[in-house]
Amino acid sequence: MPRQTSRDLRNESRFEVLHALFSLGPSTRQEIAKHTGLSTATVATLVTQFLAEGVLRIATVEQNTVGRPYERLSIDPDRGRILGIDVAETYVDATVYDVTLGPLGQSEVALDEHENDQAYVVGGIVRAVEAAVAASGTRRDQIIGAGVSMPGQVRPDAGVSVFAPNWDWHDVKIEELLEERLSMPVYVDNPLKAVALSEMWFGVGRETKTMAVVNLGTGVGAGIAIDGSLLRGAANNAGEWGHTLLQLDGRQCRCGRRGCVEAYLGVHGLEMSLAEIDPDHPALRQPLQRGFVDAVAEGLAADDPALLELARRTSHYLAAGLGDLINLLNISHVTLTGWTTEALAEWLLPAVRAELPEHVLPGSQPGLTVEASRVPGNAVALGMATFTLEQFLGALGLASPASAPGTRRRLRTPASAKS
Amino acid sequence: MPRQTSRDLRNESRFEVLHALFSLGPSTRQEIAKHTGLSTATVATLVTQFLAEGVLRIATVEQNTVGRPYERLSIDPDRGRILGIDVAETYVDATVYDVTLGPLGQSEVALDEHENDQAYVVGGIVRAVEAAVAASGTRRDQIIGAGVSMPGQVRPDAGVSVFAPNWDWHDVKIEELLEERLSMPVYVDNPLKAVALSEMWFGVGRETKTMAVVNLGTGVGAGIAIDGSLLRGAANNAGEWGHTLLQLDGRQCRCGRRGCVEAYLGVHGLEMSLAEIDPDHPALRQPLQRGFVDAVAEGLAADDPALLELARRTSHYLAAGLGDLINLLNISHVTLTGWTTEALAEWLLPAVRAELPEHVLPGSQPGLTVEASRVPGNAVALGMATFTLEQFLGALGLASPASAPGTRRRLRTPASAKS
Repeated sequence: MPRQTSRDLRNESRFEVLHALFSLGPSTRQEIAKHTGLSTATVATLVTQFLAEGVLRIATVEQNTVGRPYERLSIDPDRGRILGIDVAETYVDATVYDVTLGPLGQSEVALDEHENDQAYVVGGIVRAVEAAVAASGTRRDQIIGAGVSMPGQVRPDAGVSVFAPNWDWHDVKIEELLEERLSMPVYVDNPLKAVALSEMWFGVGRETKTMAVVNLGTGVGAGIAIDGSLLRGAANNAGEWGHTLLQLDGRQCRCGRRGCVEAYLGVHGLEMSLAEIDPDHPALRQPLQRGFVDAVAEGLAADDPALLELARRTSHYLAAGLGDLINLLNISHVTLTGWTTEALAEWLLPAVRAELPEHVLPGSQPGLTVEASRVPGNAVALGMATFTLEQFLGALGLASPASAPGTRRRLRTPASAKS
Repeated sequence: MPRQTSRDLRNESRFEVLHALFSLGPSTRQEIAKHTGLSTATVATLVTQFLAEGVLRIATVEQNTVGRPYERLSIDPDRGRILGIDVAETYVDATVYDVTLGPLGQSEVALDEHENDQAYVVGGIVRAVEAAVAASGTRRDQIIGAGVSMPGQVRPDAGVSVFAPNWDWHDVKIEELLEERLSMPVYVDNPLKAVALSEMWFGVGRETKTMAVVNLGTGVGAGIAIDGSLLRGAANNAGEWGHTLLQLDGRQCRCGRRGCVEAYLGVHGLEMSLAEIDPDHPALRQPLQRGFVDAVAEGLAADDPALLELARRTSHYLAAGLGDLINLLNISHVTLTGWTTEALAEWLLPAVRAELPEHVLPGSQPGLTVEASRVPGNAVALGMATFTLEQFLGALGLASPASAPGTRRRLRTPASAKS
């Protein structure tokens, strides 16, 4: 039985100081104490340790008219670089971050969603990484590691893509494959866990510790945080809201079941809905899913009646599906993310908010908010970089209370950070 | 921000020692250490404290051929009595327990499900309590308190029945009403939380810390434990699986929404299913829900074809609804409870187990078990007594890590326990 010791508590305090600096930016010891709830004395002790270890640096010194000068502390951005990589069915997005998780360079490579060869997908990841590393002006020896989100079911502790339905991958040792090709430590996880973590660190998580982050793209799903802990489930598969029912014995879902939420709200679900409304609609002739979603957004902006009906039906499905999530978990904060959200939020969100009260039990309605994510950039890539940073902090002896999946701790201290 | 201190950790250890004694029965210090993972020295220190406080007593002393005698410790059952009360739409079940949660006496009072007057319901509770107290030979001054489960949405911290759909109750101060009538401390909660807690203490919770307990009765819902913590949600409404969708825009549910799981798996849902199969079936002429369920069980035992078709459809609905719960939460252990389960499990469970793999994602299938609850007696009443015991232990300075809803600590030490 795992047991929390006083050493864990000290580590948790150390982690919270760093987390506060990520949230607040450069801050005084007093501001950190206020944000974390730790005593000023504890914060002062921990900051002294961090300065000695080179994790923090003094960013600015301010002199007020009276009293001692105020030092603002920040995490030393030169300690290393981290890659966050979002691998989806239709693209790879790689971003290089500094250790304060500020983006330095990014690259996107398109993937053909009809191609499922391992070498093809791995090749796309490698090209995206190389371009992002070049764009950010990063030296290889600065890189602490790469966090790679793979679609479908992933076991971070084993580094394995257990099942990727779109590619029909089973038990692919993706971490090993990528470490060999990229020559850097790799941490793999699932995009739902990544978006939840980025929302916990940089989005609505600043205000609440309990939330659902609903991702709408080729696949759909939810990242769920309860009291500041990521819900992983028995085998890291929690959050498969996309494979809960909207309609018993309804539309065929690619998971094999019928009537799943994803068969209505995944991009292919939207295509099926539009085909029911107007089977000859020109948007359906787009060969790739992203092209379809872009065509829908353009047509909606031009008040295309078939697409307005598509938006109406999609909002109805989305309100119903979110109602299920809220009724089951009694979660007050729902954030929408993913590229369908980015393209269509302005048409979907007002209608969803209007219909949602019809689906939510009275006791779960007070304080309920549904918003598009405020996390800047690619939330999956940012979340994967955050996981990688947590692993790195873990290797420094800092436990994250939130997301630790009990993975192997293999991330090295980079050469630049040791000096 | 709540913060766990080393004092909480000590209290958690104290709680685990008591929890081990509830699970194991009379045990030696060595057995307690093995079960809890605490060191033998820590267990010895805590046991000495408990003996001094009169919480534990030495149950037996065994002398082996060599070495020191072994003392078996148990919780002192004479420290007080606890009432666990299950208030449903159709009955009140009150049970008196000793502080080891052994049942001493029980009583059931039928409620007319068409009657929603507060005085009527409270009167039924009082009659059940009086009969159970008499049946158990309990003196009033021995009673530590009563845990009362109320149907619908309950706020334990406020002692309020927020919304009881069957009675159309809104914000009824039920705890205050009952404390006045019963002259004892009352703790109220929701039956889903109660069944989950009793399963955590006395059922599958002995083997796992993560589980869903699915209650099938007039209403249906799930009690959910994640890593040993009860999932409560923002307003104690988590677990309303009964009000997630089986069929978008399907059957009218009493919650106002259409197509909810409860409209198919609650007793009224079963009545609607049977009416679709054979609107003139004699089981539908039973005036009360319990009579209907008993008639269905009798007819199934006699191979009534309409009822066999009802069992087939109900199993299909149940497998689909459980599939949603498992896919979303990646929970490996599902326990079925409630009076529909008791009456119909032998017809439903084999069919549900056979169909379930069609609804569950491959990654969530390994190790998946679905069973009828092994918790003896009324799991709601037992869970409510367990909550009340936790409150009592809390008042002694023992924090339960699992279920504490941040309630007021008002349970008194009874006269008999003080002596």
